[in-house]
This record gives sequence, structure tokens and C-alpha cells, in this order.
Amino acid sequence: METPRRIITLLTDFGLRDHFVAAIKGVMLGVNPDLAFVDISHLVPPHDIHSAAFILGQAYFYFPLGTIHVAVVDPGVGTERKALVASAGGHFFVAPDNGILAYVFSREETFEAREITASHYFHTPVSPTFHGRDIFAPIAAWISRDIPLHQFGPILERPVRLKVPAVTRVQDALVEGAILAVDNFGNLITNLKPENVPAYGRAESRACKMLAGQREITAFRTTFGEGAAGELFVIPGSSGYLEIVMRDRSAATELHLSPGAPVGVILS
Amino acid sequence: METPRRIITLLTDFGLRDHFVAAIKGVMLGVNPDLAFVDISHLVPPHDIHSAAFILGQAYFYFPLGTIHVAVVDPGVGTERKALVASAGGHFFVAPDNGILAYVFSREETFEAREITASHYFHTPVSPTFHGRDIFAPIAAWISRDIPLHQFGPILERPVRLKVPAVTRVQDALVEGAILAVDNFGNLITNLKPENVPAYGRAESRACKMLAGQREITAFRTTFGEGAAGELFVIPGSSGYLEIVMRDRSAATELHLSPGAPVGVILS
Amino acid sequence: METPRRIITLLTDFGLRDHFVAAIKGVMLGVNPDLAFVDISHLVPPHDIHSAAFILGQAYFYFPLGTIHVAVVDPGVGTERKALVASAGGHFFVAPDNGILAYVFSREETFEAREITASHYFHTPVSPTFHGRDIFAPIAAWISRDIPLHQFGPILERPVRLKVPAVTRVQDALVEGAILAVDNFGNLITNLKPENVPAYGRAESRACKMLAGQREITAFRTTFGEGAAGELFVIPGSSGYLEIVMRDRSAATELHLSPGAPVGVILS
Repeated sequence: METPRRIITLLTDFGLRDHFVAAIKGVMLGVNPDLAFVDISHLVPPHDIHSAAFILGQAYFYFPLGTIHVAVVDPGVGTERKALVASAGGHFFVAPDNGILAYVFSREETFEAREITASHYFHTPVSPTFHGRDIFAPIAAWISRDIPLHQFGPILERPVRLKVPAVTRVQDALVEGAILAVDNFGNLITNLKPENVPAYGRAESRACKMLAGQREITAFRTTFGEGAAGELFVIPGSSGYLEIVMRDRSAATELHLSPGAPVGVILS
Repeated sequence: METPRRIITLLTDFGLRDHFVAAIKGVMLGVNPDLAFVDISHLVPPHDIHSAAFILGQAYFYFPLGTIHVAVVDPGVGTERKALVASAGGHFFVAPDNGILAYVFSREETFEAREITASHYFHTPVSPTFHGRDIFAPIAAWISRDIPLHQFGPILERPVRLKVPAVTRVQDALVEGAILAVDNFGNLITNLKPENVPAYGRAESRACKMLAGQREITAFRTTFGEGAAGELFVIPGSSGYLEIVMRDRSAATELHLSPGAPVGVILS
Repeated sequence: METPRRIITLLTDFGLRDHFVAAIKGVMLGVNPDLAFVDISHLVPPHDIHSAAFILGQAYFYFPLGTIHVAVVDPGVGTERKALVASAGGHFFVAPDNGILAYVFSREETFEAREITASHYFHTPVSPTFHGRDIFAPIAAWISRDIPLHQFGPILERPVRLKVPAVTRVQDALVEGAILAVDNFGNLITNLKPENVPAYGRAESRACKMLAGQREITAFRTTFGEGAAGELFVIPGSSGYLEIVMRDRSAATELHLSPGAPVGVILS
């Protein structure tokens, strides 16, 4: 039996027009020519660590154990920010230490994070502006060749944490949250979960309201098909969060909302 | 001799920014870690089943026999619409039963279509809004592991058919058709074929005219290079259909035409 | 020991929405089902050979020796322009003979270029508008199966050369160059190298100025982090060229510059 090739996922803000992503893959293939790449996204808005953290947090755990995730949204490249390698939940991560692993670290109970200092693994000369190619790529490829993490550097005790918006019970009957992301269809993904609306899916939900962008949304449904044309409604989204959606239009455009905007739920 | 890995193509309207495509690939790799993915497109306009059907119909048959094509443009997700698995022309297809396989079914003489009902193959819990990840992805991956189609559900006698624009001979000397698609260069792909213009490529074609967007196009050529700068002309396109093109500009912009618009040919 | 699969990179102006890229990959997999594709870019501006040449020149050499690079930006498809296959620096190239290999040929000391004439390797019938699918794709796949280049056609003595902007020492203290490209972050990549500014990185650089878009740029730095917010500055970019950048904004937008625009450096 042959071992299936190692999977490396990539998440960056490099865009799809330039040579950057190809250079990274070329460098990795130079270390291990037998890799399977999966692009998570290269269209993260430039320097938007929050968006990248959210996307990675929604994607990584679907991959087989042993997958290596390379996430490079790196506005601090060339500064004092550290480079890190981590293992969590059976997955490996290679990224700048800027909070991009926030959703991974909050999902996994334990993790091991190390600062990358072993420069003999780097692609040289190291460009001060492209650590994706010269540091993160070769480290990921060496992980795929089973170099143990402790070879790359010392334990990083306190990796940078990103502030992820919290759900707050403001009053007995009022829960406050925020928009985490807007997807390709204009659906607004909140940080609220169905369990924050205990009446969800039961008749009492009729008395609930979601407040967003100065609108009151009173329809809590379970599929797109149940919504009426032109109606704003709430569904439990595929990521486990409540989403504000419209059936055939963009709720984000309708409500003029973007990530970070507050939402509230008035419980009946 | 080792079997080469199974090829899975993907066609969706999920866009390239979010985690959706990666989640699908992750789930498939969880079932079979040794897959070769080819992305056909993820930039189908949201919910545009016609465009997706056209793109799939132009692409699938170039792949080796045994390729598994996953096509998910699925505005009816979570409703009564069925999920289907099919084999046709030596290829496998996994898709919602909404007409997205229209061009496949019209190209192939015979096919076997089955409704997917075998929920023990699903990724659970099944989200009512993301069957791409929870139903279509795992079924495709199980096909790659040689599970025979009849294991996934009963024969689907009448899969949903999409109305594909027809070519009509309106009068002896007038053929009517329609724009099927606009490509990246702004070329307008019609549903007319060279055989609809019998004089094509011969001197008599000089007397023919194509009517589109209130313009008369009289130049029928065989390559881009034969066209003059700023000229609208017709060529037999690489898909086998006649296309209305300009050498260095977008014919779609010049004519303000989009898919569905009527075109006519006056035969001499 | 099994040979790792052959790597084929792709660079086109086909966009990511249509079926074109998938058709090319399908044809290649039909010749050799065991290929590893890496997309360099499909978002080259339509017909922009210069941009494609630059991107290829920045990417190809990061890949392992033996990689096959397919570059198809081909406004002259179907005309007299030749099709070529080349080997240079241990890499293979398949492309129209229109200058798209300019940066490869100027980087490598020697190369072998051949005109593709062996039509029995083509995918037939050959469309006069899609040689990417019918000529370049199958030739690349046959290279991956170790067909030697001389089988594809005769030596091409003088492949088309593209005029790459030169660096000129206009006066003792004035060097002139040009913008080669703008990247996803709006960084302006010039054709100047650090050695064109001998004082770079030393205190004397303080007396240097770069002139671009009617602005004088006096800050020569080594990382993004050293720049001030809102400041235009120069850094040695990851491609080896000097770049005009801003820390959190697009220098291209700020200066209204695009590829081809002149830049100058006044040496102290």
C-alpha cells in the first residue's frame, strides 16, 4: 500500500492574477514533488486577517487528519511579528502569528504552537516582503516530509489572539451579536447559533425578532425554499451560525450591512 | 501497475472567496484521499442553471472516461427537488435534478439516472442549505471508490429537462436561433452550427447575413486573424457553434447582447 | 520507487468562468491521466502578451526541473504565427511563438526552441480559434510522457522576441527605467534592481530620489513595516526588482501609473 500524497491547503490575500501563489506551490514542490494542493481562497481582501481567520475556521476541519494548512494574510511581513507552526485537532498550520488561527484555536481544546526559527529550512535569500514563498511554503513542505514540529523552533506560549465578536445576553429577552461574514450569495452570517434562540423551530419563534440594519426580521425558517420572494428571513446556515438571507437576492445589499455590524435578537 | 487516481471535476456558483469549495473538497478527500480535482468553474452567476448547464456541456466530454462530474448550482436546495446521480457516455454526474445536465442528456444517446436516497452515504448532519457539501460531495467520492450507482437509489425515470433554445427554419431563407453564452473575450456563442448556413466557407456565403441586436453582420470568416479591426464577424467557434466576434474587442459589449437574445440568419 | 507525477503549469487569459481551462486539462488527462496541474494564472488581461510574459518569468523557475509550462495568450491564433515547444534551464515550455517566453529566454543562457509541426499529436479537428486545447495541451501531455522535443518539429532559429523595457543610464546621476507590472496589492514593480541604486541600504541613499508619476519618492526602505502610513516608498521586491509601494494602500492608484510608465532614479 502506498501512502496517499499529503494534502496542503492554501489561504491567502494574493489574488489570482499574479505569480505569487504559483511561486509558493513551486517552492513546496521543490521540497516534496508529491503534494496535493487545495486552494481554500486567494481572494481574501488584502490584509484582512479577520476574514481569513473566519474562512480558515470554516474549512480546515473538513479535511483529513494530517492535512497541512498554509494561511498567509500577512500585513506585518518583515516586521517583528513571529512566524508560527502549529498542530491542533490532528491538523497542521503554518502562518504568521497575527491571529489568523483564531477560529482554529477557539475550536480545538488543545494545540501546540511553535515559533519558526530554524532558518536552514527556509528558501533563501528570504525576501523581507514574501515570507509566504520563503518561509511558510518550505516549512509546510517539510512538515509533509514528516519533520517533527519541534525541529522548527521553540514553543510559542501565547500566540496572538484575535478578538472574535462575542454573543452577549444583554437582558432576559435580548441577545446581541454581530455579522461575522458575507458570503458569495450576499447571505449575512452572524455569530449567533440556533441555541441562542431557544424557540427556534417551534411555534414560539413567531414571537422572536432579529434586529439588523434598522430592520426587524420576524421570519425564522429552516430552508431557503420556505422564504417568500423579496422576504428577509433567518435560517440556520451550513456553518452552524444563523444567517440573514433572501431567497433570490443579496441580504447584504438589501440591509447595507458588512462584517462587524451588530445584530440583536429579541426573544419572545 | 497502479491505477491512476480518479478525476473529479467541480462546477458551482459558490464563487472563489468563501470556504464552500474547500469544504466540498475536504469532505471528498475524507472518503477518498487519493482524488485529482479539476475545477471547471465556480464563477457561474448565482443560481444560473442555464449557464452552468452550457459550461458543463462544453467541458465534460474532454475528460477521460470514468471521470466524475459534480455540478452544484442549486437554487432549490432544501426543497422537494431531487438529488441525482447519473452515468452517460462513460462519465458520472452528481447534481441536483434541476436541468443542470441538460446538455449532457441531449448529447448522449443513453443514460442512467438515479435519485439519491441512500442517506447512509451522506455527510451528517445534512445542512438544509448546503447539499453540495453534505450529499453531492460524499456521493461523488463514493463513486470514486467504485460503489455502483444502484446503491445510491432508484432509477429516476424523468429527470428535469431544461429548455435549450432551438434552431428554427422560419422561412426557406431564414433560420432563427439564439445566443447561448458570452465568453471571457465577449464572443457571443450562438446555438447555430455551420451546417445551418450551408454556404459557409464558400463564395455564396457572401450573400448571407446574420441579424443580431439590430445589426446586420455580413462577414463569415474562419479565423480571428481574417477579421478587420473594429469589424463584427462570424466564425465557427471552438465549441462547434457559430460565434459573433470582434478581433480585439467584446462583441457582447458592442451589440449589447446577452444569453437568450435572438439571432437570425438570412440565407442567400 | 514510483516516479512522482509530472507537473504541468498553466498560464492563460481565458478567465475562470468559462469551460476553456477545463477543456485543456481534460485533453491533457486524456493523453496522460497522471498529471499534477498548477494554475499560474488565468486572469491575464485578454491578449496581453507582455503581462503574461512577466508573470511566467517570475514563476517558472520555482518549479522542479522537468516541469512543463503551458502559456497561452494567443491573439494571433489561427494566423501565420507559429506554435513552439522549448526547453530552457531544465524546464519545458509550450506556447505560441509571440514573445510570451521573453523573460524565460532572457533569464536562461541557452535554450532549444522548436516549431510544432507534428500534427499527428494534435487533438482533432483542430479549431482555428482554440489551439490551447487542440495543439498546446496535447503536446504538453506528450512531453509528460517523455516524447523528445525533436519529435514535435524542426528547430526554430529565431523565436519572436518581445521588447522588454531596458534600464538606461541617461546621465552620470540619472537612471531611467519603467513600470513592468502592478500586483494585487497595487505595488508598482519597476525594472530597476537594487544594483542600479548603488547607495541602496546605505546612508547615502538618503540623497537618492525616484521619480514616478510626477512625484519624487525619497524613502528607500527594506520592509513594508518601515514605511509610515500614507507614505510612498521604495523597497526591493520579492522578484528582485525595486517596487514603489505604500503600506496599506495601492501605490498604483495613488500615482495613477500602469505598466509601461517611465520611472527615473536620481543618484546622489
